[in-house]
Amino acid sequence: MRIALAQINYLIGDFDGNVAKIKTAIQKARYQLADIVVFAELAVCGYPPRDFLEFDDFIRRCYVSIESVAEECQNIAAVVGAPSINPASSGKPLYNSAFFLADGKIMAISNKTLLPNYDIFDEYRYFEPNRQLYQVIEYKNYRFAITICEDLWNILDNPLYVRNPMEELAKLNPDVIVNISASPFHYDQEPIRKDVLIRTAKTYKLPVFYVNHVGGQTELLFDGASMVIAPDGTVFDELDYFSEDLRVYNLNDFLYKRKNEPSQPSPRRIKIELIHDALVMGIRDYFKKMGFPKAILGLSGGIDSAVTLVLAAKALGSEQVKAVLLPSRFSSGHSITDAVQLAENMGVSHDTISIEEAFHSVENSLQPWFKDMPFNVTEENIQARLRAVILMALSNKFGYILLNTSNKSEDAVGYGTLYGDMCGGISVLGDLYKTEVYELARFINKYKELIPESTIAKPPSAELRPGQKDSDSLPDYKILDKILYLYIEQRKGPNEIIGEGYDPTLVKKILKLVNTNEYKRYQTPPILRVSPKAFGMGRRMPIVAKYLS
Amino acid sequence: MRIALAQINYLIGDFDGNVAKIKTAIQKARYQLADIVVFAELAVCGYPPRDFLEFDDFIRRCYVSIESVAEECQNIAAVVGAPSINPASSGKPLYNSAFFLADGKIMAISNKTLLPNYDIFDEYRYFEPNRQLYQVIEYKNYRFAITICEDLWNILDNPLYVRNPMEELAKLNPDVIVNISASPFHYDQEPIRKDVLIRTAKTYKLPVFYVNHVGGQTELLFDGASMVIAPDGTVFDELDYFSEDLRVYNLNDFLYKRKNEPSQPSPRRIKIELIHDALVMGIRDYFKKMGFPKAILGLSGGIDSAVTLVLAAKALGSEQVKAVLLPSRFSSGHSITDAVQLAENMGVSHDTISIEEAFHSVENSLQPWFKDMPFNVTEENIQARLRAVILMALSNKFGYILLNTSNKSEDAVGYGTLYGDMCGGISVLGDLYKTEVYELARFINKYKELIPESTIAKPPSAELRPGQKDSDSLPDYKILDKILYLYIEQRKGPNEIIGEGYDPTLVKKILKLVNTNEYKRYQTPPILRVSPKAFGMGRRMPIVAKYLS
Repeated sequence: MRIALAQINYLIGDFDGNVAKIKTAIQKARYQLADIVVFAELAVCGYPPRDFLEFDDFIRRCYVSIESVAEECQNIAAVVGAPSINPASSGKPLYNSAFFLADGKIMAISNKTLLPNYDIFDEYRYFEPNRQLYQVIEYKNYRFAITICEDLWNILDNPLYVRNPMEELAKLNPDVIVNISASPFHYDQEPIRKDVLIRTAKTYKLPVFYVNHVGGQTELLFDGASMVIAPDGTVFDELDYFSEDLRVYNLNDFLYKRKNEPSQPSPRRIKIELIHDALVMGIRDYFKKMGFPKAILGLSGGIDSAVTLVLAAKALGSEQVKAVLLPSRFSSGHSITDAVQLAENMGVSHDTISIEEAFHSVENSLQPWFKDMPFNVTEENIQARLRAVILMALSNKFGYILLNTSNKSEDAVGYGTLYGDMCGGISVLGDLYKTEVYELARFINKYKELIPESTIAKPPSAELRPGQKDSDSLPDYKILDKILYLYIEQRKGPNEIIGEGYDPTLVKKILKLVNTNEYKRYQTPPILRVSPKAFGMGRRMPIVAKYLS
Repeated sequence: MRIALAQINYLIGDFDGNVAKIKTAIQKARYQLADIVVFAELAVCGYPPRDFLEFDDFIRRCYVSIESVAEECQNIAAVVGAPSINPASSGKPLYNSAFFLADGKIMAISNKTLLPNYDIFDEYRYFEPNRQLYQVIEYKNYRFAITICEDLWNILDNPLYVRNPMEELAKLNPDVIVNISASPFHYDQEPIRKDVLIRTAKTYKLPVFYVNHVGGQTELLFDGASMVIAPDGTVFDELDYFSEDLRVYNLNDFLYKRKNEPSQPSPRRIKIELIHDALVMGIRDYFKKMGFPKAILGLSGGIDSAVTLVLAAKALGSEQVKAVLLPSRFSSGHSITDAVQLAENMGVSHDTISIEEAFHSVENSLQPWFKDMPFNVTEENIQARLRAVILMALSNKFGYILLNTSNKSEDAVGYGTLYGDMCGGISVLGDLYKTEVYELARFINKYKELIPESTIAKPPSAELRPGQKDSDSLPDYKILDKILYLYIEQRKGPNEIIGEGYDPTLVKKILKLVNTNEYKRYQTPPILRVSPKAFGMGRRMPIVAKYLS
């Protein structure tokens, strides 16, 4: 029994493209003498299809796609994820299913039991959970227990679900566990995911063949990292991270072997390297899948735009990126030289367009109303917004897509200008705290100084008024980021955070800033997600509210 | 047995404020000799609390609030909605509960069985459904079947859930059905909701006491309209729409009466009047609950900004609204006179700030790059964005909040400028198709011409280039809006829509526009929801996708 794992980068709703990729993988697997090839969860339509699932037309196209894939399954079987229609007269209209295809037709359908409905997941919005039909599928004398992603995840000490489908399947004496997944990346996910699969293999003393999505789907980044776990819990093999892959395994090579020594954990990847690779993939897939040729961004000389530029150049190629310096009367000389140096280091073309004339004319137009009122955040915001006007004009005229350069610390406390520096098609760093942006900059510079050292060394400043520093308005980022992490990622309340030794006044001030700036985050671009709790679809907060605010 | 229904406008997370309102209502009900007073679902924390429910601190405050309300329950009982902790070792950590309070303490807790998880609802994200504990609560010799909102909604022909909690409760011989709800308004909701409650009363031959939320919660508008249904299905009484209310009923007044003739349906309210009242409440509550004193908006002379201005003046008072005319070289004379006339009709102060100087300076700054490239959508967008720069500067300097004036037809097909006319704190008309905006304008002008007739009569134009008309880029709104309705509200596919007689090329073009403009809608302000399918939290679509696009 030779089993192929096909780790593919799908495009949501692109049935023709997805089916073509699946068929090519079937052909490759057959060529490598595989008996069966396994694809990911909801492979034919891509993941997450979201409310497209509410369209009958979309579901019909899923069925047509499955039938087309089935025709390709001659002398090879395939497990492919797709929605299926719930025939019962009550309950939600769909199941999240694994189709077992062989001999040119659908042999069996297994439905997902455990539907994740937390963080970025909304599966209970669309799907009825499987409640009774637990089947193993026999093929060429092997019995396959086919599970779908979350179905294996209910083994924690405080389980989220009252059912455990693998317990039911185990009673049917399977030989192999197959798990088809759509498990997005975050920097803490890899060991958690491995632990779940290893525990499953050991508990049931069965091999686990796990196939994940790979690629960026707007904000969601799928790392792939499909794998095979031996019955003793050894990680037998791991597919590539952040790229497509297809590998074939001979089940007998390890099925009947039992190691006596404890299994060696595979080496942990470094967090910041994973983040780097995930973001590069995320930018690349956003542009490629949207059909956008080239990116533009404003280069301030600061750390955020510098890191964004490097990642964009790596993702798209230097010649596909345009950097624009947009100085005003408050821009310092070192900011301009740093920005130019960076663009030259990266081979990225750069232009300089002063906002001074536009700023002056807007001030002038408003003079009859503002009279001699003092310069304040209004004039700071005007500058940031005029930069957006210029960048978006270049975007519209030449077909660039604007990259947003905000970081998570700024987004959290509202230290940014709505319709100004908060603009963009996609936010590259919006899930990295400022201290993590520095970490990423140092990682980027590990072998060669791409980002000028002075950009990293100087105190951060928005340069929107004379001598401005971030530290005028915000606490030290080292403290700010820790408090934000406790509140956002760890969901701790004020008393718990204060209990960890932080100044009560500061904690209350920061939590209030986070909550009262929900209205700004509502209008930000989608943010490439790398943490366990990113702003965006995985964190849903009321705007109008009065809690810690 | 005297039962009071307390229909209250809560503020999410404002425990002190909500508890104070609840206690005041208890005192009023007791003064009116009520034996029991019923409040809405999740009353103590407001609805929807969204991810605040994931904070232990938030849940703790809910418990403190319930205990505080219980103390007030002397010589009167209360049914109050709040989350409660699921004590089981598996399943989600919370229940969505009804607390029965009497004699200063918690007498019983009933948990919600059916958790809506569609459209704007995410309840399965937070709550474990009740699976076994069905209890009636006996108080002063009456047996109360306490249900929570969706618990009564599984009576349709093709039910969404496999369970029916009211069937279980009916076996326990209750005397009264109580339903505590959080059922947001849309223009088709009233008859559906009444049908559900009437069918319930008739099926079980029991009176139904139904209490809903009232008030705006960012985009969600709760209409109140709490009601009492007699066992024969008669609507015995209905509380106010769109405002707080408290009424007391003597159960014996109608409990044992049986009418012989069929019940008279209460008069249907006119759709456009409901929409009008809902939007006025939505604006008012957004400003009041956010603590914003006054609104600003750009007045173009067109229909959208005219209707928005009237609604804002009704919601906030004319003196709290500032209108700004922002003409460019393309603004027509009649637009300016219409805009001025409207502001004067409404008693709203207005200023005129030309964007011409700023537009010229931006064109000038970009000249070295744009050279002699032709005027196109870029220059149109620059104008729209400079208007936003000016409006946001006034907002920042003087504390106005910008009202967005986009309509649903524009948002659907992307006929608007991101960071330009798509800006704002809240979108007033974003859930009304252009044809509905006209309908609303005519309703507003029913008794007096508030909106100048020429604004309604002239062909719509963005006035961003010479002689521009919407009809240059878009099909007639009467056709466009029908196709959009079929796709967005009815979720029909292209073949179904074409099957209704529309031109195939046009249908495909429009559906493609809707899907490829998802990225713009992602960054729009929250939209006051009045339809069964509004853009925003109730319609979740991938941005990067290739479906009908």
